[in-house]
Amino acid sequence: MTAQAAAGTPAVEFIPLGGIGEFGMNMHLLVCGETAVLIDAGVMFPEPELFGVDLVLPDLSLLEAWRGKIKALILTHGHEDHIGGVPHVWPLFDGPVYGTEFTLALVKPKLEEHGIDIDDRLVPVKARETVQIGPLRVEFLRVPHSIPDCVALAIHTPQGVIIHTGDFKIDQTPLDGETFDYHRFAELGSQGVLALFSDSTNADRPGFTGSERDVIDGFEEIFSSATGKIIVTTFSTSMYRIQLLVDLAEQFERKIALLGRSMQQNTAIAIELGHLKIPAGLQIRDSDVRDYPAQDVLCVCTGSQGQPNAALPRMAIDDHRHIKIGPDDVVAFSARVIPGSEKAIARVMNHVARRGAAIVADGSRHIHVSGHGSAEELKLVLSLVRPKVFVPIHGEYRQLARHARMAPLVSPRSHVLVIEDGDVVRFENGEGRVVDKLPTGRVLIDGTRTGEIADEVLRDRRHLAGDGLVVAVVAINGRTGAIEQPPEIIARGLAVDPRHDAMLKEAPEWLIRAVEGALPEERTDPGLLKERIRIEMQRMFRKRAGRRPLVLPVVLEV
Amino acid sequence: MTAQAAAGTPAVEFIPLGGIGEFGMNMHLLVCGETAVLIDAGVMFPEPELFGVDLVLPDLSLLEAWRGKIKALILTHGHEDHIGGVPHVWPLFDGPVYGTEFTLALVKPKLEEHGIDIDDRLVPVKARETVQIGPLRVEFLRVPHSIPDCVALAIHTPQGVIIHTGDFKIDQTPLDGETFDYHRFAELGSQGVLALFSDSTNADRPGFTGSERDVIDGFEEIFSSATGKIIVTTFSTSMYRIQLLVDLAEQFERKIALLGRSMQQNTAIAIELGHLKIPAGLQIRDSDVRDYPAQDVLCVCTGSQGQPNAALPRMAIDDHRHIKIGPDDVVAFSARVIPGSEKAIARVMNHVARRGAAIVADGSRHIHVSGHGSAEELKLVLSLVRPKVFVPIHGEYRQLARHARMAPLVSPRSHVLVIEDGDVVRFENGEGRVVDKLPTGRVLIDGTRTGEIADEVLRDRRHLAGDGLVVAVVAINGRTGAIEQPPEIIARGLAVDPRHDAMLKEAPEWLIRAVEGALPEERTDPGLLKERIRIEMQRMFRKRAGRRPLVLPVVLEV
Repeated sequence: MTAQAAAGTPAVEFIPLGGIGEFGMNMHLLVCGETAVLIDAGVMFPEPELFGVDLVLPDLSLLEAWRGKIKALILTHGHEDHIGGVPHVWPLFDGPVYGTEFTLALVKPKLEEHGIDIDDRLVPVKARETVQIGPLRVEFLRVPHSIPDCVALAIHTPQGVIIHTGDFKIDQTPLDGETFDYHRFAELGSQGVLALFSDSTNADRPGFTGSERDVIDGFEEIFSSATGKIIVTTFSTSMYRIQLLVDLAEQFERKIALLGRSMQQNTAIAIELGHLKIPAGLQIRDSDVRDYPAQDVLCVCTGSQGQPNAALPRMAIDDHRHIKIGPDDVVAFSARVIPGSEKAIARVMNHVARRGAAIVADGSRHIHVSGHGSAEELKLVLSLVRPKVFVPIHGEYRQLARHARMAPLVSPRSHVLVIEDGDVVRFENGEGRVVDKLPTGRVLIDGTRTGEIADEVLRDRRHLAGDGLVVAVVAINGRTGAIEQPPEIIARGLAVDPRHDAMLKEAPEWLIRAVEGALPEERTDPGLLKERIRIEMQRMFRKRAGRRPLVLPVVLEV
Repeated sequence: MTAQAAAGTPAVEFIPLGGIGEFGMNMHLLVCGETAVLIDAGVMFPEPELFGVDLVLPDLSLLEAWRGKIKALILTHGHEDHIGGVPHVWPLFDGPVYGTEFTLALVKPKLEEHGIDIDDRLVPVKARETVQIGPLRVEFLRVPHSIPDCVALAIHTPQGVIIHTGDFKIDQTPLDGETFDYHRFAELGSQGVLALFSDSTNADRPGFTGSERDVIDGFEEIFSSATGKIIVTTFSTSMYRIQLLVDLAEQFERKIALLGRSMQQNTAIAIELGHLKIPAGLQIRDSDVRDYPAQDVLCVCTGSQGQPNAALPRMAIDDHRHIKIGPDDVVAFSARVIPGSEKAIARVMNHVARRGAAIVADGSRHIHVSGHGSAEELKLVLSLVRPKVFVPIHGEYRQLARHARMAPLVSPRSHVLVIEDGDVVRFENGEGRVVDKLPTGRVLIDGTRTGEIADEVLRDRRHLAGDGLVVAVVAINGRTGAIEQPPEIIARGLAVDPRHDAMLKEAPEWLIRAVEGALPEERTDPGLLKERIRIEMQRMFRKRAGRRPLVLPVVLEV
């Protein structure tokens, strides 16, 4: 099939709900006649400006216009910004969810936590397989990334082939031997590709990103010299990183403990599916760490973005049930810094330093490598595919624009479209252009960080008036953490209710208890204290009044 | 004089009010008997968590105990985090303010803006000069940094010599030829130094920082290839960077325009004192830029941290009186990212990309070099000085801890003290130890960003109850920027006043006007819109009611 389709065939439209012009919550709709498919259903972590919110999802009301037409959801890989929204789009259509085995295995517990009956809708696919969805034939192509079992999509449409890269890098020496499918990309490129939608995350980085193996030397240095525990924080889906750490633990005769709920859950899945191999006897439980000499232990834990309730941040303020950080320990941050997390990570590092431990972060040693291709990799894909239309995806505007600037150099005949969420790209007569802009938005999700996922609420910002807003103001002695003035509760928009007044009279007391229940380390760290106040106040409003106001903590240091 | 002083001589105490355990607002007190001197008087930029605040200063009430004893203020260099608080400490003592010529020239306009009668209290000093202050003899030693005319201090006390590095790096090829005073540092080290207080900002960076000249190649590439305007943002005190840009502008036959109030003010001072040389006819006014072909212009402007009202951020949203960013232009970010500014800078970059211009930031080309020494430079200073007591300063806890870890390797006999703000280090009998911890805090300053510096207020957080808190909630259509619901004003703690009620009835109208007066680019960017609402609401409360509440904007995208 050539990219040039006959006139009269149905047009194909691409409509991004999220992930184009922002990082995260990737969700794209592809429509052809009476058939629509969703590509990925991701969430994003809230910016610091979105007080009191746990996750952000694209506003799904845009999909209403295609209700009944959506035949399938196709997942490229198992990162939260691609699958975190699956439980929320699940009720909007009846068809299958296609994804590789590992991707679907990560989706499954999310659906179960939402009490969803999965039935037979999760349909595993393998690289180089194809599925037919109405007039669309979707082919899955292997791409390396920082999580196993990732695929790009080649979607054969009546208008021509559309390639969607998902997230990728060109790891020449992937740990699992699953290399980038150069051959099929090249073959499609030779035959003619209508459009390429390609990952722009690292478009502003020059050169090649490098292989997951590139961090081995950096970690070997740490393992060779550490005299206490080695504590590494990374994403709980980074199985290549975790495998390398397992291998080094074996080589340097350390036991490995995996800390944090998602770390334990995801590694168990990876072990079951053969994406992570831990030799018998090497792994120990977190409660057993104290029984081993510090120099015999490696801890791999959650909290790389400074999330207050994750394993490392709790250890950092000496509030972990089983594990203490000691002065001979080394704490290594082996993960990307998600924009907006800089301050939270710095706070964790300062607390770790107060425990006396050494800190290794990128900059001092090479212990992290990105999962996204840099400029030369992006050019290589453009060269292989030579699309008629090129559309940068996955990135803020500046990354999209940077990616767009590469195309004329390596694929001079490609027509470049820099689009943003809501833009409708129509492919017709072998051409692609933006024909409309639909309203997009965000939906805020509240509740997951408290560990009460089943109790999660979708909070559309339009419903704020109903849910209400509570500003909790407390003045704290910056040195001792003591409360210095009677705290203030300011409430607006809480629905009228007989319990309303009583509840607001109680609320200052909840606030006092939230502060007094905090650790000394939390009470002298406004960022941590605010997080605790937020969680506690939300819990109390929910428990005592069935209300879910947006809680805005204001901590004044005195 | 040896570091070992006779017993019976008065003890010397070092008490940091700010800058140790945090970045910025460096201010240290050194006390010997009846004599106290302040070393630097800096401010810091507020964290995003400190809504509605412009600058942060250490709480000066700690100084009350030494009132009458403070004989002088000694300044190491002219950066805001070392001199920004001079107008605020000025009234607390009567003595001289010592600093180099350029440093004092930067202080002077600050004092004038505060309506302070300077009289003869600004006393210029040169490197290698000394001044006597009671029992203390203070010697000034040249150190290179990113701003001209910087000095370290060697303070000869009855207990021995105390070296305070100020900020420094070891630029081997400084543009002005003013190299690090290795010889005097070495001489003092040979004779014996009691204590070294040394800059820890870059303690977590390996290797050598490099020379200011290292950015020439990166900029040459930009000048060689740019076909439109070259627009560079950097700190307005970075005279070496600006001089390099002037030289390149001359070489590549471009006119140079200096944009932004502080850029124009500081370069004028630097030109007058010979720290910046611009050949006749090279400089043009911002209003003349449009009269030149784009490829003949270089703009150097403020806004490197994404400050909403600075030159580049205004240009980025197409709201600069004279200058538009076009698609052939190159915009280069040649400055450190102050932690906490990441999001604001990313916003500016996205807006620049929307104008179609190319963006160059560190990572793609080497166009910035830090002014602070990295690990090898810090070790070199430790080796030269070999102090009895070593105290890391200037940094968050993790940088101090990292710096502390270097000492045993290069100066094994040094006693290392990792301290934080408020710790009292007493030097006695040739030893130093922490003997007390005094309460420290912060004072918030409000008003400078609006350009109304003379109208600035010191806002101690304790006075919040008097000033009040206003939460301004507005729901905005995320796509069009239209107001979607009647805005809400929530006020607390505004002092009772006959005009109070009338004012609060008017306030929603102010809020509507603030939003409607914003540019389309601002209305669809919550970060920018919040900043505009904050400034406008504060202005209205001040103008209409003489109140200065803390304004907390909440922008809900609908």
